[in-house]
Amino acid sequence: MTKQRVSLSSGTSKGVVFDLIRAQGPISRVALAETTGLTQATMSTVVRQLMTDGLVVETGRGESTGGKPPVMLDVNPSSRYAVGVQLGRESITFVVINLSGAIVGRTRTPGTGTAEPSEMVVRLAGEIDRTLDGLGIEKSSVVGVGVVAPGPLDIARGAILHSPHLGAWRDVPLREMLSEAVHLPVILDNDATAAAIGDFWSGKLDDAVAHATVYMGTGIGAGVLIDGIVFRGASSNACELGQIVVTGRDGSPAFLEEIADPGSVVRRARELGEEDRLGLRGEDEFEDFRAIAMAAARGDEQASALVEESAEHLASGVLTMANLFDLDSVSLAGPAFAVAGPTYVRAVSRRLDADLFVRNQHSVRVRLSTDVTDAAAVGGAALVMQTELAPRTMGLKAAVSA
Amino acid sequence: MTKQRVSLSSGTSKGVVFDLIRAQGPISRVALAETTGLTQATMSTVVRQLMTDGLVVETGRGESTGGKPPVMLDVNPSSRYAVGVQLGRESITFVVINLSGAIVGRTRTPGTGTAEPSEMVVRLAGEIDRTLDGLGIEKSSVVGVGVVAPGPLDIARGAILHSPHLGAWRDVPLREMLSEAVHLPVILDNDATAAAIGDFWSGKLDDAVAHATVYMGTGIGAGVLIDGIVFRGASSNACELGQIVVTGRDGSPAFLEEIADPGSVVRRARELGEEDRLGLRGEDEFEDFRAIAMAAARGDEQASALVEESAEHLASGVLTMANLFDLDSVSLAGPAFAVAGPTYVRAVSRRLDADLFVRNQHSVRVRLSTDVTDAAAVGGAALVMQTELAPRTMGLKAAVSA
Repeated sequence: MTKQRVSLSSGTSKGVVFDLIRAQGPISRVALAETTGLTQATMSTVVRQLMTDGLVVETGRGESTGGKPPVMLDVNPSSRYAVGVQLGRESITFVVINLSGAIVGRTRTPGTGTAEPSEMVVRLAGEIDRTLDGLGIEKSSVVGVGVVAPGPLDIARGAILHSPHLGAWRDVPLREMLSEAVHLPVILDNDATAAAIGDFWSGKLDDAVAHATVYMGTGIGAGVLIDGIVFRGASSNACELGQIVVTGRDGSPAFLEEIADPGSVVRRARELGEEDRLGLRGEDEFEDFRAIAMAAARGDEQASALVEESAEHLASGVLTMANLFDLDSVSLAGPAFAVAGPTYVRAVSRRLDADLFVRNQHSVRVRLSTDVTDAAAVGGAALVMQTELAPRTMGLKAAVSA
Repeated sequence: MTKQRVSLSSGTSKGVVFDLIRAQGPISRVALAETTGLTQATMSTVVRQLMTDGLVVETGRGESTGGKPPVMLDVNPSSRYAVGVQLGRESITFVVINLSGAIVGRTRTPGTGTAEPSEMVVRLAGEIDRTLDGLGIEKSSVVGVGVVAPGPLDIARGAILHSPHLGAWRDVPLREMLSEAVHLPVILDNDATAAAIGDFWSGKLDDAVAHATVYMGTGIGAGVLIDGIVFRGASSNACELGQIVVTGRDGSPAFLEEIADPGSVVRRARELGEEDRLGLRGEDEFEDFRAIAMAAARGDEQASALVEESAEHLASGVLTMANLFDLDSVSLAGPAFAVAGPTYVRAVSRRLDADLFVRNQHSVRVRLSTDVTDAAAVGGAALVMQTELAPRTMGLKAAVSA
């Protein structure tokens, strides 16, 4: 069966209704008409189109509110899929989500390492095809691929400009290259932005006005959502948290990344001569960070102090960001927080409670992301699902009032 | 003559047309219809209403483009006025602007000092009345008073929560108190936010996507505009630049305000024993800062070094902010930059050129505000003019497409 590609552009009745069904389903046509303000006749037409597209199905009858029990509608989760790809030097994560946002497949392969972009694109396309085959998903039901990478990026062109965290790549038009190789629509976005969208898509942020997802892989970034809308800045390179100026170990100014990211923790362990005792192999920076975090979890004092120091620096950075964006919600996502999350959550909470400029007015909720390791990959898939299908980034309130 | 109060709410045809005339006048009805996409019939009705309200006048005939030369329309600058009040501990500035945004009056009085809020409100109302009387402006043509103060504020309630820079004020419902005393609508907003709006209102920022006005009075704040829309955050207390964490003189972390604001420069001069040589009197912190800045301007090495040090710290803070908001435009406003502006502009430009994360992709334009000392007062007046009359904050493009 070949499925027709549908595009529910932002603000259309179809997009708004689909989004409402996705957020609140199972839901009746009457409830949809009441919530959106559309007439019941318009609603019937819109729902019929969504059912023809295969996006929405009738799931049975709901509870009666007096008359005949209403027919309930819900999204058809297996009608469409999206692929998310999280590019990293050490590893690449592939996830496949269905229309409900549930993860139906996940693979991890070695990272970009020193591979050339053209070689990498062939590997990526092959892995995407293999993953979909393995899951028995027809390519015709895949809306696209959302690739996420550390910045700086040229989002408009879908190009990686130069990435300190992806070897020697310079000005690589990845979107075009991968789209040709995999025969699917491709979008490219910042990994931290994607992680924030992943958090939003999970539905846990609905009450946040100004939310930031802090993302720590090999570097440190952040994605900010204001009323569910991504904060982009002048060139879609906003929220480079790793690039804020803080105090280095010797008391001179340093970029946050230089003293708080996993690589800096590993370097510090070496400086202190803890290399052998903590079992650092010097092959993979992130594996060595994991070893330190595991030692800290076992109660090793020196390892705990190393992770704690990184967490305190990160907390200072998040405080600065919270004072600038007037945040009311922060989540931590990315591989680094998967192994040492609680230490970082505690340090950030403590710092915001103590020093937030508006602490007497409101607090900032701090938590780990639901899918802490792969939030960015899930966000990449969610982004391409949104772009191709429904304006979920607008936030439910905005979408309904549109 | 008593003028009718009119309110051009955001996105109405009347608001959009008025805004266009203000931005592009003199302009013909035909040009207005073409730019807005409204029909000529609708345009005639809207323009008639604006003329009845006294906001718009016919100014003669323009150039012919073939047929009869068109009648040109422009705002009637003296039809409405707004008052801006910039509250500070050391001084209070009052400005009156007309409908074109031109400053028609300006007064400065001693600051809040240790005065009680209730006493202060009586003084403010008296000074506003005296200023308007002195200018021969009838109160009926004044749309309102925009008071601006350092944060944190409760914008929704129009209250000053507690201000480190306004003596011992705590939870003062200033909007309500002043409105009762002066019998005019009053709004309260952050001084740095107002300064950004003042810059935008001056029309110099039309090409900026992500702009920040850095405001330095006794403290340090900032106002960010994205596509001309104020960035507010969760509680309208965003962009507290003075509250970002940087490196202090002894190498330990400090808030930017503690090592870069005028008070910190004066304290440092005392620590170095330069008090007498530089003529610091210890009465008014800001006067002492001015004395140091004047000495620096005369070539005094020690004074130059003191100002330069503050400028370097501020530049680090602006770099952090530029990397977080992905700014493409920065202006400096406030009394501190009126006396030492060029040093700060140079330091900020240099730092952004050297270290901005996306420096290979785009630059950040750095300049002094047009009305560097009183930008916040002008912005306060502009804000109340907007709120009561026209949705200028939306930005021209947004307003026209609405």
